[in-house]
Amino acid sequence: MDSLLLSRRDLDFLLYDWLDVTALTRRPRYADHDRDTFDAVLDLGESIATRHFAPHNKRNDAEEPRFDGERVHLVPEVAEALRVFAEAGLTGAAMDHAVGGWQLPTVVANACTAWFQAANVGTAAYPFLTVGNANLLLAHGSPEQIDTYVRPMVEGRFFGTMCLSEPQAGSSLADLTTRAVPQADGGYRITGTKMWISGGDHELGENIVHLVLARIPGAPAGVKGISLFAVPKFLVRPDGTPGERNDVVVAGLNHKMGYRGTVNTLLNFGEGRYTPGGAPGAVGELVGEPHQGLAAMFHMMNEARIGVGLGATALGYTGYLHALDYARTRPQGRPLTGKDPLAPQVPIIEHADVRRMLLAQKSYVEGALALGLYCSRLVDEERTAEEEPARARAHLLLDVLTPIAKSWPAQWCLAANDLAIQVHGGYGYTREYNVEQFYRDNRLNAIHEGTHGIQGLDLLGRKVVMGGGAGLRLLLDTLAATVARARAAGGEAAELADPLEGAAARVGRTTAALWATGDPATALANASTYLEAVGHVVLAWIWLEQFLALGDGAEPFHQGKRQAARYFLRVELPRTGPQFDLLDRLDRTAADCRPEWF
Amino acid sequence: MDSLLLSRRDLDFLLYDWLDVTALTRRPRYADHDRDTFDAVLDLGESIATRHFAPHNKRNDAEEPRFDGERVHLVPEVAEALRVFAEAGLTGAAMDHAVGGWQLPTVVANACTAWFQAANVGTAAYPFLTVGNANLLLAHGSPEQIDTYVRPMVEGRFFGTMCLSEPQAGSSLADLTTRAVPQADGGYRITGTKMWISGGDHELGENIVHLVLARIPGAPAGVKGISLFAVPKFLVRPDGTPGERNDVVVAGLNHKMGYRGTVNTLLNFGEGRYTPGGAPGAVGELVGEPHQGLAAMFHMMNEARIGVGLGATALGYTGYLHALDYARTRPQGRPLTGKDPLAPQVPIIEHADVRRMLLAQKSYVEGALALGLYCSRLVDEERTAEEEPARARAHLLLDVLTPIAKSWPAQWCLAANDLAIQVHGGYGYTREYNVEQFYRDNRLNAIHEGTHGIQGLDLLGRKVVMGGGAGLRLLLDTLAATVARARAAGGEAAELADPLEGAAARVGRTTAALWATGDPATALANASTYLEAVGHVVLAWIWLEQFLALGDGAEPFHQGKRQAARYFLRVELPRTGPQFDLLDRLDRTAADCRPEWF
Repeated sequence: MDSLLLSRRDLDFLLYDWLDVTALTRRPRYADHDRDTFDAVLDLGESIATRHFAPHNKRNDAEEPRFDGERVHLVPEVAEALRVFAEAGLTGAAMDHAVGGWQLPTVVANACTAWFQAANVGTAAYPFLTVGNANLLLAHGSPEQIDTYVRPMVEGRFFGTMCLSEPQAGSSLADLTTRAVPQADGGYRITGTKMWISGGDHELGENIVHLVLARIPGAPAGVKGISLFAVPKFLVRPDGTPGERNDVVVAGLNHKMGYRGTVNTLLNFGEGRYTPGGAPGAVGELVGEPHQGLAAMFHMMNEARIGVGLGATALGYTGYLHALDYARTRPQGRPLTGKDPLAPQVPIIEHADVRRMLLAQKSYVEGALALGLYCSRLVDEERTAEEEPARARAHLLLDVLTPIAKSWPAQWCLAANDLAIQVHGGYGYTREYNVEQFYRDNRLNAIHEGTHGIQGLDLLGRKVVMGGGAGLRLLLDTLAATVARARAAGGEAAELADPLEGAAARVGRTTAALWATGDPATALANASTYLEAVGHVVLAWIWLEQFLALGDGAEPFHQGKRQAARYFLRVELPRTGPQFDLLDRLDRTAADCRPEWF
Repeated sequence: MDSLLLSRRDLDFLLYDWLDVTALTRRPRYADHDRDTFDAVLDLGESIATRHFAPHNKRNDAEEPRFDGERVHLVPEVAEALRVFAEAGLTGAAMDHAVGGWQLPTVVANACTAWFQAANVGTAAYPFLTVGNANLLLAHGSPEQIDTYVRPMVEGRFFGTMCLSEPQAGSSLADLTTRAVPQADGGYRITGTKMWISGGDHELGENIVHLVLARIPGAPAGVKGISLFAVPKFLVRPDGTPGERNDVVVAGLNHKMGYRGTVNTLLNFGEGRYTPGGAPGAVGELVGEPHQGLAAMFHMMNEARIGVGLGATALGYTGYLHALDYARTRPQGRPLTGKDPLAPQVPIIEHADVRRMLLAQKSYVEGALALGLYCSRLVDEERTAEEEPARARAHLLLDVLTPIAKSWPAQWCLAANDLAIQVHGGYGYTREYNVEQFYRDNRLNAIHEGTHGIQGLDLLGRKVVMGGGAGLRLLLDTLAATVARARAAGGEAAELADPLEGAAARVGRTTAALWATGDPATALANASTYLEAVGHVVLAWIWLEQFLALGDGAEPFHQGKRQAARYFLRVELPRTGPQFDLLDRLDRTAADCRPEWF
């Protein structure tokens, strides 16, 4: 029985046949590992995700977290699943041996993570937010902060959150108003309200460490005056155990369309419910330098955004496998050319339109997984490549690809979930089946960690122009190298390279044309369309890469991959033509629509 | 305060300025009406929808129908809303005076209906299913059946359902197995299970009349052996009141992602719980001729499918108005060219990307509403045009447009709901706001009353080829006439006509190329893509029509319509280019993907 979460065969192909991750074991950081340990981690992830996460995915959705005015209640399976997860050691999978981690390559750790995101994204969010929190502290915190907060996270005793947004400041972090007032003891007292805080309160562990963006009085206005603080729910005693209650309290829960298993809170800091140490305000510790909080946060943003993209991918992937399973087993109708009503009905996969919906899903979810793992591999390259130029290149390419690795799966793996419902017909629309939940869960991913609109501005307004356009040149060189390999391979690979080469050329020309205006408002008016068009070109490249990695494999797996590559190059990539046309003519139809005309 | 349900200004423009529905009052059937009565009905619809339907839309969703093993429970507001609706006389709005109706044009009745679909699609479904049921009985039932069943429906005492699908036969009606055995008294006894029956049981009225497709023993196999039966929940006494319980029982409810206010049931007929008249089987009456049931059902299908399209439109429309309201009132961020963090934040409608999302929504929802009303107007034309050729033309054009009028809004007004969520950011993903429900509700519309795939086969496999291609020629002639008017108008209208003319030519060429193969399997392999491409061309035509109807109006309303027309012609129509390319080259990438390759 194949898993309905992810395809291990596909993961193996991507990791070993394409990305050659075993080569990483020749680097000092990963020298303790070999393919066996990688395989063991993937086995472990699949096993725990299947046995402890997937079974309560529906219950997590049906019985969403509840706040009784004092405590947050989750279904009991969440704590049990996370106990197993932490006891297996998975929280620290990619972290240093020094803090108790396994020091796995990010690409392997992320592949393992995807099993949990496919099985139960609501439960999986708790440890993955904690990992993000820990990574931020590892990068910017003091040794004491790492000992106090990170080690218990690796052990599964503490959890973590990220507290950025406020009710009046979602995408606009410049408008944060939470205050952090320095104290005589070197600490800070935090006052303010944070919105959309996932995992903001629960009793899954002994403590919750909130990483909070706030302003120190006198700080510069805007994003240059934001600092980062660690604010634990319970102050940590010298012996490392949780002590006095800090003044961080839940003001309410948000009730979401999906992703319901992850409690999402409005948090008040320093509202006066508690007075830790006998004084008002929530006790916080500065992490890193004053006013450098946003930079610290963005330092981790690439990885966080790749994580969101992989979460979207995992939901799309499991939806596809569910749809495929249904299509193979559900009899309905007859071939167009054989309408004898006395003949038995055929499985719906026999209908061309169902195969179209399946192949589209396959091209989206396998393409997105490949992109997410490629970017994860870049994280490892950035961290461990032996030569500095290689590290810098990896960093730059990762910077350019990140908005796509976040937004493309959020858009297209949601489209895959939509098609998975459609394959199921009416059954897909019911909660008796699984696919409608994936669709609801996945809809979040275009919103959090920067909306589509924000990603578009990031790509066109920053990433492709930074360093005098070095990011764009590196991307186009990378695509060109693949085209050259495909030409060298000849045959069908060379044929498939043609449309990619043409589309890559359009990316270059269009970007130049947009910025030739010298007018950011005009250049950026269609940044979302630019994001979508470049995203599809990048995925076409990812598919050509996969096509090449198939070699002359002739199993059904290889044939299916090839067909999905053909589908993407032939059917999906041409969608970008009208998008580039729109960008090239600096279309202002939407930009020129006055607010009063709507 | 403008309504957040629909724009009355837009309705007035479409009905009076564009479709000239007052001209219908010169026809005998509508001679009792004038613009005042039309306006009064629209006022009434808006008022009752706003006061009695919208307020419990969220409760209908949160507290979905419940089955206690014996009875179905709905929230109490549903019955109250439907009492007001029926007492106002709205059930019979389009029905003949002879059965107690108002004999309104379908186009006016449907415009009125849209208010209820926008306000509360779950509650609105009960009377609209009943109207569909009544129309079928009016067209095919005996005078006694009309007296027994339709009159109490018009009075709001009886409700109706449509029972087509079975668990093993959804899209494939040829595989129905429900049996109808003739009895000595001329009646029938029905045995079988029906799936997906909306409104299948409740206590909103005195009785429920199920219209059931079933086979009489000895009937031909497949769709040619299906007959239609009226099967009331309670047998009707000679005095018209409900009497003995018939053997129709709820076997279970389906729990849906959205549209939750409408109870959806699995119904057993003749399972043996009741033995009406002391004998087994559910008592049913044949409606129309034996074995003509599917033809009768399809006779009403155009109107039912237009109704689904209008329901999708109404959900998209109210979502758009909610997003617009939010965008005008939510401050967030600053203009790209003025990033002073001390300046106040601006309403998000000031951001180009938000206007892009709003203008896209506007083009989808106003376009879809125009198409739905145009098709409704064709129903009136088909019924009341004085000359037979005009009636035949209306019938033919309606036949061709119906799959688009059903599927296009289901796809693109769902896309509008997706954008409405995105405009709201994180708030849009919560159930504290309204748009996520619209999105969930609207997802049904691509499935029921024939999936997208079925609509594609209907359009390409039947509608454009019937009568030797007469349907397609009429469609293209209709588009050409609008292009000619736009050319005659000159100026911008003439410019906008160019891309429509080009796209219409592609419809003709591509259709010919597909059928030139002589191979239905190849022609129909991409029927869904054909449906989408032709749909966009039709909507471009609808937008050019609206553009022309604006005349030289210079109010913000007119400017906004013009901008939406420009947006559709410039940004949306070009999407069809790659779709026609795919169709022209008879792409078989998906069709050739073998089931074992996935």
